[in-house]
Amino acid sequence: MEVELLVKNATIATASDVILDQQIAVKDGKIFLLGKDLSNIVNAKSTIDAFGAYVTPGGVDSHVHLHQDNAPAGDNFETGTRSAIAGGTTTILAFASQKKTDESIIPVVEEYHRRASGNAYCDYGFHLILSKPNATILEKELPTLVKDGGISSAKLYMTYARLKLSDYEVLDIMNATRKLGMTTMIHAENGDMIEFISEHLEKQRITGPYSHALSRPGIVEDEATYRAISLSELMDIPLLIVHMSQKTAASHVRNAQTRLLPIHAETCPHYLYLTSTRLKDPGDSGFAGAMCVCSPALRDDPMDLEAMWAGLNNGTFTTVASDHAPDKYDHPQGKKAGLIDGKGHFRKIPNGLPGLETRMPLLFKGVLDGRISIQKFVELNCSNPAKLYGMSDRKGTIAPGMDADLVIWYPVEGDKKMGSFALTNEMLHHDIDYTPFEGTEFANWPRYTILRGKIVWDRDGVGLAGVKGDGQYLKRGSSTLSKPRDIWVNDWRPS
Amino acid sequence: MEVELLVKNATIATASDVILDQQIAVKDGKIFLLGKDLSNIVNAKSTIDAFGAYVTPGGVDSHVHLHQDNAPAGDNFETGTRSAIAGGTTTILAFASQKKTDESIIPVVEEYHRRASGNAYCDYGFHLILSKPNATILEKELPTLVKDGGISSAKLYMTYARLKLSDYEVLDIMNATRKLGMTTMIHAENGDMIEFISEHLEKQRITGPYSHALSRPGIVEDEATYRAISLSELMDIPLLIVHMSQKTAASHVRNAQTRLLPIHAETCPHYLYLTSTRLKDPGDSGFAGAMCVCSPALRDDPMDLEAMWAGLNNGTFTTVASDHAPDKYDHPQGKKAGLIDGKGHFRKIPNGLPGLETRMPLLFKGVLDGRISIQKFVELNCSNPAKLYGMSDRKGTIAPGMDADLVIWYPVEGDKKMGSFALTNEMLHHDIDYTPFEGTEFANWPRYTILRGKIVWDRDGVGLAGVKGDGQYLKRGSSTLSKPRDIWVNDWRPS
Amino acid sequence: MEVELLVKNATIATASDVILDQQIAVKDGKIFLLGKDLSNIVNAKSTIDAFGAYVTPGGVDSHVHLHQDNAPAGDNFETGTRSAIAGGTTTILAFASQKKTDESIIPVVEEYHRRASGNAYCDYGFHLILSKPNATILEKELPTLVKDGGISSAKLYMTYARLKLSDYEVLDIMNATRKLGMTTMIHAENGDMIEFISEHLEKQRITGPYSHALSRPGIVEDEATYRAISLSELMDIPLLIVHMSQKTAASHVRNAQTRLLPIHAETCPHYLYLTSTRLKDPGDSGFAGAMCVCSPALRDDPMDLEAMWAGLNNGTFTTVASDHAPDKYDHPQGKKAGLIDGKGHFRKIPNGLPGLETRMPLLFKGVLDGRISIQKFVELNCSNPAKLYGMSDRKGTIAPGMDADLVIWYPVEGDKKMGSFALTNEMLHHDIDYTPFEGTEFANWPRYTILRGKIVWDRDGVGLAGVKGDGQYLKRGSSTLSKPRDIWVNDWRPS
Amino acid sequence: MEVELLVKNATIATASDVILDQQIAVKDGKIFLLGKDLSNIVNAKSTIDAFGAYVTPGGVDSHVHLHQDNAPAGDNFETGTRSAIAGGTTTILAFASQKKTDESIIPVVEEYHRRASGNAYCDYGFHLILSKPNATILEKELPTLVKDGGISSAKLYMTYARLKLSDYEVLDIMNATRKLGMTTMIHAENGDMIEFISEHLEKQRITGPYSHALSRPGIVEDEATYRAISLSELMDIPLLIVHMSQKTAASHVRNAQTRLLPIHAETCPHYLYLTSTRLKDPGDSGFAGAMCVCSPALRDDPMDLEAMWAGLNNGTFTTVASDHAPDKYDHPQGKKAGLIDGKGHFRKIPNGLPGLETRMPLLFKGVLDGRISIQKFVELNCSNPAKLYGMSDRKGTIAPGMDADLVIWYPVEGDKKMGSFALTNEMLHHDIDYTPFEGTEFANWPRYTILRGKIVWDRDGVGLAGVKGDGQYLKRGSSTLSKPRDIWVNDWRPS
Repeated sequence: MEVELLVKNATIATASDVILDQQIAVKDGKIFLLGKDLSNIVNAKSTIDAFGAYVTPGGVDSHVHLHQDNAPAGDNFETGTRSAIAGGTTTILAFASQKKTDESIIPVVEEYHRRASGNAYCDYGFHLILSKPNATILEKELPTLVKDGGISSAKLYMTYARLKLSDYEVLDIMNATRKLGMTTMIHAENGDMIEFISEHLEKQRITGPYSHALSRPGIVEDEATYRAISLSELMDIPLLIVHMSQKTAASHVRNAQTRLLPIHAETCPHYLYLTSTRLKDPGDSGFAGAMCVCSPALRDDPMDLEAMWAGLNNGTFTTVASDHAPDKYDHPQGKKAGLIDGKGHFRKIPNGLPGLETRMPLLFKGVLDGRISIQKFVELNCSNPAKLYGMSDRKGTIAPGMDADLVIWYPVEGDKKMGSFALTNEMLHHDIDYTPFEGTEFANWPRYTILRGKIVWDRDGVGLAGVKGDGQYLKRGSSTLSKPRDIWVNDWRPS
Repeated sequence: MEVELLVKNATIATASDVILDQQIAVKDGKIFLLGKDLSNIVNAKSTIDAFGAYVTPGGVDSHVHLHQDNAPAGDNFETGTRSAIAGGTTTILAFASQKKTDESIIPVVEEYHRRASGNAYCDYGFHLILSKPNATILEKELPTLVKDGGISSAKLYMTYARLKLSDYEVLDIMNATRKLGMTTMIHAENGDMIEFISEHLEKQRITGPYSHALSRPGIVEDEATYRAISLSELMDIPLLIVHMSQKTAASHVRNAQTRLLPIHAETCPHYLYLTSTRLKDPGDSGFAGAMCVCSPALRDDPMDLEAMWAGLNNGTFTTVASDHAPDKYDHPQGKKAGLIDGKGHFRKIPNGLPGLETRMPLLFKGVLDGRISIQKFVELNCSNPAKLYGMSDRKGTIAPGMDADLVIWYPVEGDKKMGSFALTNEMLHHDIDYTPFEGTEFANWPRYTILRGKIVWDRDGVGLAGVKGDGQYLKRGSSTLSKPRDIWVNDWRPS
Repeated sequence: MEVELLVKNATIATASDVILDQQIAVKDGKIFLLGKDLSNIVNAKSTIDAFGAYVTPGGVDSHVHLHQDNAPAGDNFETGTRSAIAGGTTTILAFASQKKTDESIIPVVEEYHRRASGNAYCDYGFHLILSKPNATILEKELPTLVKDGGISSAKLYMTYARLKLSDYEVLDIMNATRKLGMTTMIHAENGDMIEFISEHLEKQRITGPYSHALSRPGIVEDEATYRAISLSELMDIPLLIVHMSQKTAASHVRNAQTRLLPIHAETCPHYLYLTSTRLKDPGDSGFAGAMCVCSPALRDDPMDLEAMWAGLNNGTFTTVASDHAPDKYDHPQGKKAGLIDGKGHFRKIPNGLPGLETRMPLLFKGVLDGRISIQKFVELNCSNPAKLYGMSDRKGTIAPGMDADLVIWYPVEGDKKMGSFALTNEMLHHDIDYTPFEGTEFANWPRYTILRGKIVWDRDGVGLAGVKGDGQYLKRGSSTLSKPRDIWVNDWRPS
Repeated sequence: MEVELLVKNATIATASDVILDQQIAVKDGKIFLLGKDLSNIVNAKSTIDAFGAYVTPGGVDSHVHLHQDNAPAGDNFETGTRSAIAGGTTTILAFASQKKTDESIIPVVEEYHRRASGNAYCDYGFHLILSKPNATILEKELPTLVKDGGISSAKLYMTYARLKLSDYEVLDIMNATRKLGMTTMIHAENGDMIEFISEHLEKQRITGPYSHALSRPGIVEDEATYRAISLSELMDIPLLIVHMSQKTAASHVRNAQTRLLPIHAETCPHYLYLTSTRLKDPGDSGFAGAMCVCSPALRDDPMDLEAMWAGLNNGTFTTVASDHAPDKYDHPQGKKAGLIDGKGHFRKIPNGLPGLETRMPLLFKGVLDGRISIQKFVELNCSNPAKLYGMSDRKGTIAPGMDADLVIWYPVEGDKKMGSFALTNEMLHHDIDYTPFEGTEFANWPRYTILRGKIVWDRDGVGLAGVKGDGQYLKRGSSTLSKPRDIWVNDWRPS
């Protein structure tokens, strides 16, 4: 039988199992057969020998900001997804973001479709960002977008003046998303606390990049996380708390999980590897720290980073995402927007880091360093995001019938490691002029990235092998990870 | 030596000690001497034989609402303080409450002085309620009120549209009260949650008195308590969380105390004795439950009540107060304001219960029932409120030089108990037409209440022996219980 | 290509994934191919249409007592493993149990091999029970048994006079098992507490079956679990706490896991479904409760059962095992050994319940009732025991090259449920005269059990289709779930 | 009226109150009068002006080892109590210690009476140490000792071969002490763990003084504390855990207290001030660390010390005691017993530190440093030990009728501080050749110690003013701090 691709000698890793000496036959972009020896069964147009390599599902990065209006110096769908595949990510979820002045979200979604369509190197879907709920949106538009548009998730903010929702508005949206089975995500930081500290820092003229960290101490995340969980419990709704970075906040999640509340949490590679000392970078007259301004802020205390690694291992975290939200550093609308008359103004520095391309390698580094198992790597980066966001029918694992999205980690005979190298921004494929992981040592990187059976990244060959437009829009369904429990505090139910 | 009063055969209880067979000589309204036998030393105008009785300090009720504009059917200073002394309370702290339209609080305080002056049966002071901070109030008026006015405490609300402060405003006020050494109090319930549930209950036409409890589930207090503690930690400020009623919320306080955060908590007798079944009282066509509408709502779960008792014992609670905030039931502006066309409307029922007179006896009942020690009784009801609110130089314990405010609990030879009786509202001295403790069995009640050496309550004699005007205004200083620690998250400090 | 068996239309469940519409080809007792459509590729001697059915890996029951000297009225390897396959279990781990008088464990293991060899219907391995460590055993025999004998696990007891080890002995054994990479299991109950209570109950002549529960209150397990975890932390050794039943004890495990200690826990179906009211069964003049005497005792409080279900879901438990340790009820050396002169003597009733055959169906019932997911079912009953006990190279999941051990859950077109029925002991295949689950309603039961490609159970056909001797002895390796972390308290290390 | 002593201008501190400008008249060894101005009332033989000074109750050191057989190089009753009064302690509780070979404890108590009688400078009582319970002791002797002998407390050990009790024996003793209302104390360290580590350290020839700390890591105390609390809960008995030193162990106590279990805890000054670096003292060829060998061992982690201070403040600890158990350093039967052929042998170094004289000053230092309040100082060092051990009718507070045991802290006009000095062992009054607090800076020390009205220490005068024989034996009653709750796990009760 004719197939497009045969991967031989694979050590397949799924979220639960590691299976040695496997062969994978790919046909029509799907995984067609799994077996110990398919050589007498299929006739493959091309073959990859994965001897000594792990073969994992393609990465699913469920938290990516591309071509948003608030980041004119950032990546668009072309440059962002290009960097995705070069780092082993074959699916991304980006955002269609409502402005508070938008009375309807339908045009918002249409606009983001225009921005993405034909430009993507990898498959993609959209989350909604809701900043101003109204009855039409909640009762009319959301159902349509879920049912016909395949958009099954929404993100809410507890901070940023232009996005921040009151607790009342959060409850109102949760009431709608719950009925529609949408996965609800929340950015949990106490906006009032941040505002208060920021103003006082400004009054005291303490405004360099590190003030960003001062203005967002861990307690800001700790409090908002507890509140978000409370709102979720009140509304009996599964919730994903995005980009967690702080120890106490993570303990709230774990305590909620102990009680079986359907609380999910995400962390990001930068909260595993970087501390706030980065914000004190003396370079560029002390402004270079602006490169590492992101929210939540990088933490001062290495124990917070340890807590994130612990949370990966003990099950607190459901997913790891990049929160790719970059802006060029040396660009008047990028990070340098915060440099006025030679003085840093932390509140004017755009928030966010580039990270789409480095996410999978940084977590694989965790595998090689013995910090997480390879199964946990697959669970956090591939399977769980696919399940949580309603696309586990096609993405996130290796099994017959699934999309043939595969990553082959550098195969070296008799050794799962390749030689070590230090990362430079030049090696990356985004349209950003820096990476916070400049100089980080890696002992592996995706050897091949395969998207629906097509080799789109061939590190030791042509490098980038995919083209703009390879990526398709994904209609998604409901989460298969968790759902409302129909348990209500005080036996009260909303109308 | 001539003295006004000699109390003999007393078993004196302080917050730490029980001392048998004591004599107390009172002179010029102060405690003059303590000794085993003063009979050869002093010549007393009058003598009380307290054989077999506990003698405790006069009660300090630090949370009392009197003559506030929002309660036209409630007690005024005369009727409220009258009921205080009949229940063993010799000092109260009432509120001077800012309206959001008040640009200055000086006239507010003056008005409350007018309402109280010459009308009080017991000593009194004022807390401020701040509902709309502005720079003049925080920077100019508060310092004056603290220094010259003897008002050293302020109360903040996280709920009620007419009083609710944003987190930002809470921080702003805390910044001011911290500098002035004011004791800060907070009503911790999540107003948005309450609003959301209430509206949905109204939509569903579920509007009887029990809807009040439905609309304020425990999680409302749980969340807001955690948030209040976080705000306090961020601002390095001692905080008293008023009228706590819920188990998880109490555990937040205890966890904070474990970490040595200066968090104090208050509970009330009704959260120790009553559950929300009271709100389902079938009387008056199902509206009688309105009598027990208070906030936080009475809890459904007896485990919450047990948690309050446990909190008294294990040190979670600093004080017990009445939160006396009554309205007549059968009065068009009282509880019956919530009865419209024969149907209950829970959101229109004034919140609050009468409790000034019953507080001390209900807690003494806890002593007799073995639930708390007599020392704990004194600590919670007398000593700690005096310390926390800056009047421990005069009030709250029994020692030479202190105001001679004493309560003598029914002395019966050879038995600390008197016969048991069931309380009726007719026995009480407030101007309210009901008590939530109607029918409660008591085996003791103050035999004498003594205010600065004057017998103002003589249960087995004339009953009420004090007169309007006996009470004096108390200028108070700073808390002697706790103060800022100068420990700041992220090493940040406000300007 | 010729294969022995083709399973079509399967919904394959692994510990992480559910994959629809799969075909499984079996060859030489192994899974040979997985694909969406294998009909043009293989030629199968027999075919099973699994339309509408879940296909799971064969069950691995890692805690089974068979043919032990202390249970002359119990199951032997033939009757025990016969019941295993009829309930979907294809692999068991039984015990080779040292007596305190045994100076060597080699003959012990040889004896158990004799008892099992040629008698088993399913595959089997052995754990060691060590009751009296000595240098020869720890330093000479264990290494041989691990390396050559394939016995990679040992079980320790903290209770029972004939088995109980001191803390010192536990540490001594842990020091040996750690070096050998053996999985260490512990029965955590405080033997002294049990002894003390039991003697006092006897003195008070309170000796019926329920006294068994009185003598083993939850605190007995709570304390010993905390102690076992402490011993494990001191020795830096992964530990599996067997047959957990109690809420606080489970919280100790979860707290340890939060800190990344390699603590594993097992619970059993009876701790999920039965309370101690069973011990008060009035039947047989009040002695019938003896049928439910097991250790730990069934718990009084349904909240303990809820905590076990919660622990399955939140990850506290690594495995579910039967702790099959039955004795006939109506047998002079069985449960009735505790009935003397018509009076029950709880200390003479043999401990243990039958449960090998009902374990998988009872947990599948949990899936159908929405209490656990099908993936969690596979993880707890199949994958994790295979990983923890070093046989995940052959058992515990469905992938090419693995043993073709499969369970097909009753396939009904268009409905995953079959009709409901009430269990009776007559339906079971053990050699025991009762089941504690008599009358329990089941809506499913294994339709087929397949052992290395052979159908050994065909519920709607011949029923028992396997024969004595189908089962093989399994040499096992080290756990792939966890290993020592090389983190030592006080930086101390044993010699 | 004639009195022996008048203390004027006192700032009296009790466990709850600080009362300014007080006068105390002492008559017949008792406090006779308290008042603001007694000068016209009494005629005093001698007067002390305490202007600017705190006057506290005399210290009660409830954990003191004197003249025990196992410490031939230690203090006897004369030298020990001499050092007590010089440090502000007026009451001590020492031990009458049963050997495992003692079949009766009556002669043991008689022997200790002989050792103390006529030798003491301060009042004293005895705890029993029970190392081998038997029916006669528990049922016959204990009741007599409690009723007639005034010995109302017993101490149990979970470690040390010559003292260690099994859990069963602990339960057996608790059953007896509970019935008699005795206060039960326990040394909570896991003896088996210590033994195991010690043997391995010896095998590895790591035997210097620091090995003492290695052999007793925090987990040893953590585990045993949890077990002791469990045993206490099972037997419904109040328990005092002696000399706690470790953070997690302290959290077990606090959690138990949260649940209202009557668990009390004691810590010692050395666990507040010293870390295990002391054991690495390079002096005397590396053996000088032997001076700081005590059990539990000094902790490595300063966070453990912080946790002890936190525990003082948040109420975890009921008492502070010295655990005075010294041996001379340079004495063949003292610490140097562990120095053999020039090499340290940690297991042969006698355990214990001198501390009777420094306890009160070290804790007063905590007051001056703002770490605890003066009331907490009194509570921990005076009132609570008096209450817990049944002597609050005479000791532990300042009130009419109480023994006139007072400490006057260095009075300096207008300043509560005296000049700072560094402690040297020469300043102390014990018969030990070192103090672990050599060089510690103090800014205060008792100016006067008064025992039943007699000035026994006059720092700026004669120094030691008391004489051998001033101290009297104290018959004690039951604890007034807590008692059994009659709440039983599983509703079981012992016979």
